[in-house]
Amino acid sequence: MCKNYVVALGLLLCVAKSNAQNNAGGNYAQYVNPFIGTGAIDKNSLSGSNFPGACTPFGLVQLSPDTRENPDDPASGYDYNDDSIVGFSHTHLSGTGVADLFDFLFMPYTGNVVWNAAPTKSDSGYRSSFSHSQEQAKPGYYSVQLLSHQVKAELTATAHCGLHRYSFPAGKPAHVIIDLDHSLNKKRPYWVCKVITAHIAVVNDHTIEGYRIITGWSRLRKVYFRAEFSQPFASRLLKEGGHVIENGEVANGGTVKAVLNFTAGSTPVLVKVGVSAVSAEGARNNLAAEVTGFDFDGIAAQAWSNWNKELSVIATEGSEEQKTIFYTGLYHAFTQPNNIADADSSYTGTDYTVRKAADGTHYSTFSLWDTYRAAHPLYTLVQQQRTAGFINAMLRQYETYGYLPIWQLWGDENYCMIGNHAIPVIVDAYRKGIAGVDYQKAYEAIKASSLRSHPGSPFNLLEQYHYFPEDKQSQSVSITLEIAYDDWCVAQMAQQMGHTADYTYFTKRSMYYRNLYDQQTGFFRGKNSNGEWLPFNPLAYGGNGGSPFTEGNGWQYFWYVPQDVPGLINLVGGEKAFQNKLDTFFTLTAKPEDVNGNASGFIGQYAHGNEPSHHVIYLYNYAGQPWKAQQYAAEVMQQQYNNKANGYSGNEDCGQMSAWYIFSAMGFYPVNPASSVYAIGSPQLKKAVIHNANGKPFTMLAPAAGGNNIYIQQVLLNGKPYAKTYITHADITSGATIEFVMGIKPNKKWGTGADSRPPASTQ
Amino acid sequence: MCKNYVVALGLLLCVAKSNAQNNAGGNYAQYVNPFIGTGAIDKNSLSGSNFPGACTPFGLVQLSPDTRENPDDPASGYDYNDDSIVGFSHTHLSGTGVADLFDFLFMPYTGNVVWNAAPTKSDSGYRSSFSHSQEQAKPGYYSVQLLSHQVKAELTATAHCGLHRYSFPAGKPAHVIIDLDHSLNKKRPYWVCKVITAHIAVVNDHTIEGYRIITGWSRLRKVYFRAEFSQPFASRLLKEGGHVIENGEVANGGTVKAVLNFTAGSTPVLVKVGVSAVSAEGARNNLAAEVTGFDFDGIAAQAWSNWNKELSVIATEGSEEQKTIFYTGLYHAFTQPNNIADADSSYTGTDYTVRKAADGTHYSTFSLWDTYRAAHPLYTLVQQQRTAGFINAMLRQYETYGYLPIWQLWGDENYCMIGNHAIPVIVDAYRKGIAGVDYQKAYEAIKASSLRSHPGSPFNLLEQYHYFPEDKQSQSVSITLEIAYDDWCVAQMAQQMGHTADYTYFTKRSMYYRNLYDQQTGFFRGKNSNGEWLPFNPLAYGGNGGSPFTEGNGWQYFWYVPQDVPGLINLVGGEKAFQNKLDTFFTLTAKPEDVNGNASGFIGQYAHGNEPSHHVIYLYNYAGQPWKAQQYAAEVMQQQYNNKANGYSGNEDCGQMSAWYIFSAMGFYPVNPASSVYAIGSPQLKKAVIHNANGKPFTMLAPAAGGNNIYIQQVLLNGKPYAKTYITHADITSGATIEFVMGIKPNKKWGTGADSRPPASTQ
Repeated sequence: MCKNYVVALGLLLCVAKSNAQNNAGGNYAQYVNPFIGTGAIDKNSLSGSNFPGACTPFGLVQLSPDTRENPDDPASGYDYNDDSIVGFSHTHLSGTGVADLFDFLFMPYTGNVVWNAAPTKSDSGYRSSFSHSQEQAKPGYYSVQLLSHQVKAELTATAHCGLHRYSFPAGKPAHVIIDLDHSLNKKRPYWVCKVITAHIAVVNDHTIEGYRIITGWSRLRKVYFRAEFSQPFASRLLKEGGHVIENGEVANGGTVKAVLNFTAGSTPVLVKVGVSAVSAEGARNNLAAEVTGFDFDGIAAQAWSNWNKELSVIATEGSEEQKTIFYTGLYHAFTQPNNIADADSSYTGTDYTVRKAADGTHYSTFSLWDTYRAAHPLYTLVQQQRTAGFINAMLRQYETYGYLPIWQLWGDENYCMIGNHAIPVIVDAYRKGIAGVDYQKAYEAIKASSLRSHPGSPFNLLEQYHYFPEDKQSQSVSITLEIAYDDWCVAQMAQQMGHTADYTYFTKRSMYYRNLYDQQTGFFRGKNSNGEWLPFNPLAYGGNGGSPFTEGNGWQYFWYVPQDVPGLINLVGGEKAFQNKLDTFFTLTAKPEDVNGNASGFIGQYAHGNEPSHHVIYLYNYAGQPWKAQQYAAEVMQQQYNNKANGYSGNEDCGQMSAWYIFSAMGFYPVNPASSVYAIGSPQLKKAVIHNANGKPFTMLAPAAGGNNIYIQQVLLNGKPYAKTYITHADITSGATIEFVMGIKPNKKWGTGADSRPPASTQ
Repeated sequence: MCKNYVVALGLLLCVAKSNAQNNAGGNYAQYVNPFIGTGAIDKNSLSGSNFPGACTPFGLVQLSPDTRENPDDPASGYDYNDDSIVGFSHTHLSGTGVADLFDFLFMPYTGNVVWNAAPTKSDSGYRSSFSHSQEQAKPGYYSVQLLSHQVKAELTATAHCGLHRYSFPAGKPAHVIIDLDHSLNKKRPYWVCKVITAHIAVVNDHTIEGYRIITGWSRLRKVYFRAEFSQPFASRLLKEGGHVIENGEVANGGTVKAVLNFTAGSTPVLVKVGVSAVSAEGARNNLAAEVTGFDFDGIAAQAWSNWNKELSVIATEGSEEQKTIFYTGLYHAFTQPNNIADADSSYTGTDYTVRKAADGTHYSTFSLWDTYRAAHPLYTLVQQQRTAGFINAMLRQYETYGYLPIWQLWGDENYCMIGNHAIPVIVDAYRKGIAGVDYQKAYEAIKASSLRSHPGSPFNLLEQYHYFPEDKQSQSVSITLEIAYDDWCVAQMAQQMGHTADYTYFTKRSMYYRNLYDQQTGFFRGKNSNGEWLPFNPLAYGGNGGSPFTEGNGWQYFWYVPQDVPGLINLVGGEKAFQNKLDTFFTLTAKPEDVNGNASGFIGQYAHGNEPSHHVIYLYNYAGQPWKAQQYAAEVMQQQYNNKANGYSGNEDCGQMSAWYIFSAMGFYPVNPASSVYAIGSPQLKKAVIHNANGKPFTMLAPAAGGNNIYIQQVLLNGKPYAKTYITHADITSGATIEFVMGIKPNKKWGTGADSRPPASTQ
């Protein structure tokens, strides 16, 4: 299709088209099940922490039911195991381990006017029971029957707006409460969550405006809204602290709410809500730009169509369950980063100043420690224009803040996790030729972020000790290893740009990981500044401080040298020893007391529920035993993903857990996400077609895949036998066809030749 | 002088000139002693709470020494009784009872690098002892010898910039610390004060930029700076939390500091610091707009000249001490409200959105419960253009916030104190014909602020009960009385604009004060919603909640009916009873246990140290005994004001305590500040000339005034005998001459005739 187009209009136009536009015809949104990841198996296990509500791809507004007054865990606000709903708030996080956002709770209810979700001594509260049998979710649409109130609530969204449709029962007093204090539990110990101030103004008999200024995981957010109702409210009450103002016009303070009273009739009450992270004017403009009228079904159809377009970048064949997991994964991967700029390109920067984004967008919610591994490589493949947008937003943080994002939430750095993994994202984009980024500026940012000491990255210590000493920087082993990887990335970009001295410097620093290798134990091990090793138990977990390991143990972090796997193999004494160590890793059971809450999804010490393990399966390819990678990759896909609420074995982490599946199900995975090299695993889909932006589709065929046919018997690349255990990015973008011949028994010869092992990178 | 100008260039040009420009030739700045109000007599008494540092009239930057690590009381940061200085911060409050601001502490020091002001186990701290004998302050200039470091520090300022000159001793390591965490004690119980985040960036070897986002008394402030040094720093250290970064380039976090190391030589180190409440760009622009080069003496001379111009609005003759108190009072009155807009007119509004001010300014720091009494009437007289600016800024709060300011600090409403006293300010300006305000919009704002229930003003209760019941709204007597006054003001503007229904409504509401008059005790007294009086002791004080009285007692609040003094006289049973009550008021001693910390400056129950008493002396004029007003007015001026650090008998309160003196020393005072009527007291100055903006100077002559000549023998207005105990605003603006013949004994006949009593207003 694209070729004809090229003939007619020229290559440039065709290349400029988004991947999605090339494939608008598919029907992929039907496979999305937004309930996947919304509930854990039981209270003691991790959920995906996804939300089931309505949103658009990469949109600001994510309008979803909250099942708790003070949503905390799961961080999405919704737990499939809960049986009541407190309301619908407009902003959420998808898949994180920490809660924030939940701006602007709206809740329809009937009966007497009440102000709290939970019952009090004097009233029953507005919280409503619900049943999953009377609940529906699909891309851009959510509905639920609020059983306590006999109200059907339906939600849909545009990029900056939510649209609610409430069908009230006849003959009962009908209310909508707007609660600007709905938020996470303020008593959580690890940071202050506080509404600094909030504002509600009654603009006219069908319009409410307001904002809240809140400090939380994001240290400071300003969020504004304008809500227009489809019919006038007959009366209203405002609440300011403990004071109720009947038919009030304005309320300011830390705790402000409004109850709007409607004359219940046969027509549902609709409300459209424009949201802005910039200003009240921004909220008004966003609403005017995106939702004229109250065409709920039209907006919902548009959201569906937008999702369908975005999901069409990859066409697949496989079982219904596989396609459901795959497209729901793609949906979760495309749920963020969010464009927090207004429709007019205004955004609030890290310095709390409003500017206009030259490229029209300002993305945020960068859970980089998670997403640089596979989610960003996925974006680099199928969201190229947005990848440039992501990077431009990261560079704006550098310009005002001094270094690139670590974990950026709604434009604000929160320093969650470790490393500087904006670097691999940018280097990967540079090496893959993603257009729309000033790479001179990007290199400056990368270098500054690798030299300027900042929280979690005290480079002065690295200069002095050539590793991070645990007595001066906690999580020191994980940080030493992860920064060594980032350094390798800087070196690659330096080399390609001709910065030879930088290449030498960062290449040297990228080898510092070796300084924490303890020959005696055979592990990376914490060391103090005096050179003494710390006491060590490779099964003992660290959390986020207080231990040399970050959300993992010595076993899981042993494998974190994606930039130099041959070097790691040498460290342990060669390929055989490395194979043995991998075998032990996948079979060694931990004592329950050694395991912490961040780890789940175990195969031996492999913990698929958190990110440090994600690349390890594929390391078998580097050691001449690719069939073991196939075995474990298939095991994870078949046993740790499903199409139910507990469909992920740990937090979905802003697309990373999904991206692992998306790559792996197509048969390959980016072990080193900036290398342009993908290690081959065990395709689960029978076919996958990646609609490259250049118009040359890449086709993966595995007609026998599925069930027990998890082992590769043979591979054909463009029809020719192929014995390498990796493919390159160039293979994909060239429009190649790769065919996997799958079988029930491992072919222990395929992929074991001398040149079959994945290289460090394509250069 | 103006007349000739009129002939040459026309009336319009002349009228448009500011009051100050008409009199640029005077030398009035020489009489300002910025140390007045900086120290209390002892620890148990109130200080003026003024700061001695460098600032310009109504300027944003007020660069002043802080004598405490956690400045709290006095709220200005400087206590004359202290003997050490911790540094120089760029923003301060003058005269308030509550502390805030203190942005961007800079401190030069010598010796080893240290990070804390106070000594620690390992170092001596950078705090320095100082002596008042080696300290100097005058308008726009402050200097001190930092004895611990042998550094002379000099400060000057422009509207948005501070300029420091540090003369280091030769041969010692020279440092400047910049502390972005310097602030008030975070443990104060009544609100959270917290640096949400701060940022320091090293721009080059002589430039530092940064900002801090802070919540405190002002719920949210963003403050940015750019500091350029006159010579490069040889090296620098940044500190981020507990982590020191040698030669760091950037630091972000809650606690960030920088130490800059200079090569001490014979030339002093200068640093100019641009400040903005809008953005980093704003700080840069402000600095570029106001301070080119490092001409310290030139900038100081310009600041002096600006002060001199502003102070020249009133020329006086009197003793040196009188002129010092008078011009220091004018200086304190002109220290705020501050223009918080950038040089390019950008400002941050109450909705935390940046806009441009159409009139180029955006004033804030409106301590209205204090300043509406006399400070604003003073501005209305001699700062007419700025009065329009003040009101325009107040109207901007109304537009985004829903009602006018109560206590607005740096653009943010903090709800300190009671009433809605932006109303008398606006009504007074309207009735006096101040140009540059959209009075249609202003009336809309006034009416909304008088009808929309908001914190401290639950008008729904007033509608229901016709008074505020203490069981539903604390400080109920004070609020009932003060809102009755505001209501009278609304009624006057309504009448003048032809809004007859509003006039009737608010006139009726302005009489609700009577509903809390208790005939039995003869006082205004708290009442519950069931109509029962509260237990009552007229000597018992209330603070700011928990009692029907606000920072006062039943005695002090008895007099709060400035809009209807004849009505109040009737309530107590006529003029004689009223006289007796006044006499008791000025002679009744309270028990120590009845007095609270907000009251001071006693003459009986009269407490000049806080505002509720301020108009009471002049009430004798309304009851036929003006000589008693003369007696007490003179007593207060002679005994409760002086030219030393303890020169005020209570907090100076953003100009109010000074404005009381300025009016009273000229012989008249605005009992009802929106009435255009001034009650005559006891002039202390021998002469005062108010240079009206219309070019017609008003002249007050009292050649015999001073010492014991406190009593009026006779008054001549424009040469004719004058027996009224008041003058009107029209008398002043018409360019009249009033002459007071003063003597040692009261003339008990003057001013006692039937038509001598001040009317409710000039209409």
